[in-house]
Amino acid sequence: MPVTQADIDLANRLADAAGAAIRPYFRAEHGLEAKADASPVTLADKEAEAVMRRLIIAERPMDAIVGEEEATREGTSGRTWVLDPIDGTRSFIAGRPIFGTLIALLDNGWPVLGIIDQPIIKERWVGVTGRTTTFNGQPIQARTCRELSQALLATTSPALFEDDQLHAFEHVDGQVMSTILGGDCYNYGLVASGHLDLVIEAGLKLHDFAALVPVVEGAGGRMCDWQGDPLHAASNGEVIAAGDPARIEEIVETLACRGH
Amino acid sequence: MPVTQADIDLANRLADAAGAAIRPYFRAEHGLEAKADASPVTLADKEAEAVMRRLIIAERPMDAIVGEEEATREGTSGRTWVLDPIDGTRSFIAGRPIFGTLIALLDNGWPVLGIIDQPIIKERWVGVTGRTTTFNGQPIQARTCRELSQALLATTSPALFEDDQLHAFEHVDGQVMSTILGGDCYNYGLVASGHLDLVIEAGLKLHDFAALVPVVEGAGGRMCDWQGDPLHAASNGEVIAAGDPARIEEIVETLACRGH
Repeated sequence: MPVTQADIDLANRLADAAGAAIRPYFRAEHGLEAKADASPVTLADKEAEAVMRRLIIAERPMDAIVGEEEATREGTSGRTWVLDPIDGTRSFIAGRPIFGTLIALLDNGWPVLGIIDQPIIKERWVGVTGRTTTFNGQPIQARTCRELSQALLATTSPALFEDDQLHAFEHVDGQVMSTILGGDCYNYGLVASGHLDLVIEAGLKLHDFAALVPVVEGAGGRMCDWQGDPLHAASNGEVIAAGDPARIEEIVETLACRGH
Repeated sequence: MPVTQADIDLANRLADAAGAAIRPYFRAEHGLEAKADASPVTLADKEAEAVMRRLIIAERPMDAIVGEEEATREGTSGRTWVLDPIDGTRSFIAGRPIFGTLIALLDNGWPVLGIIDQPIIKERWVGVTGRTTTFNGQPIQARTCRELSQALLATTSPALFEDDQLHAFEHVDGQVMSTILGGDCYNYGLVASGHLDLVIEAGLKLHDFAALVPVVEGAGGRMCDWQGDPLHAASNGEVIAAGDPARIEEIVETLACRGH
């Protein structure tokens, strides 16, 4: 079922509601706790997911919901809302206003709508299959990158790679002009806006990558896994985003060196 | 000679002028070139430094000026203005609004006034020896960190360390709760504001670290080199910033492991 304006409006309202839940906790002292895996999480995360779930359940009771914080809600429509209230939890906790709320709509497992929302400095990327991605309501375009040697590459942290992934990543890293660390979902928005050329990451969950795909692709870029296959709910979490789709093949080939 | 309100006012006007010069270039397509060392630099950098130099020369003709872009101007007053129009050039070029303009005033080589200014989202830390650091005009306080195992550590990129420095850094990295990458000067502002506990870096030039010292120390934190000595114009560029001075000794001891 194609994405409708009503879907886009709902997604925007989810982002508005999540932002309102999150803002009071940013740079506030309260609300920190630690997960078993030691990644930090905040009350903001939980409250933002809860408010988004309530809106979806009220308006789309047949849709499934997958969120970072709560158990999956099964659906019957073939559509799934995928929510990550705070992607870039470390950035949030450290007080950097470049974390993001991620909202995706999947149709039979394929991401067809995505929002990256930065609620503190009020920046929002909206991507929809078949439409041009917008940044704060204005259409945007990823940029051309004629050679890998001219590319500006981003990755949140090399520590997030397994050994063989790190080995493969370093092959690409050694060929680009420059690499910038940190950034989480914000990096993918910057690819869509034409300020970054590449993001290469691994270990991403569905709620980390689903929203990014329509944003990057609606701006003329391309996202895929490390084999070059399109991203889907069943993908393994290895992710490439390229502002210029012409660079994908070379990157996939370079990443294929792992283990060698 | 102590820092006067006139000095602080001038420093704020330098930051205002630099911001006005920089803003038109942020997320704009023009102005990019490459330095011999391949670090990116923009016209914004040059114009912002030029406008700050003009103001200083007009108002403080006897003061020395050290900037990233232009040759050092000698002075006779014992005071030196140290300017880095865009610290975090990669962040700037990638479109992340967490780079900073750094302005420091040295008295006989000791940093006595520092500004970290983020001109896009309009955030400014002002630190002066003997005064409480302010963030957007409000007094701020770094936070207590009772144990290294509870610390949130930041460093811009492990790739900026030499081999022995990286080895030493990894010893600290292995003991803290969590490490966040990227961030440049913005990390030090976040230490002063009590959102980050530690920053450990190396290879910093005088223009990279001079402004940070009064900001962090005026908020109750401490900055020093990897031997625990206070930072001065002659420091070697190895830098520790701790929101809680009680953690410095342990970090210096841990970093001393390098080469072993």
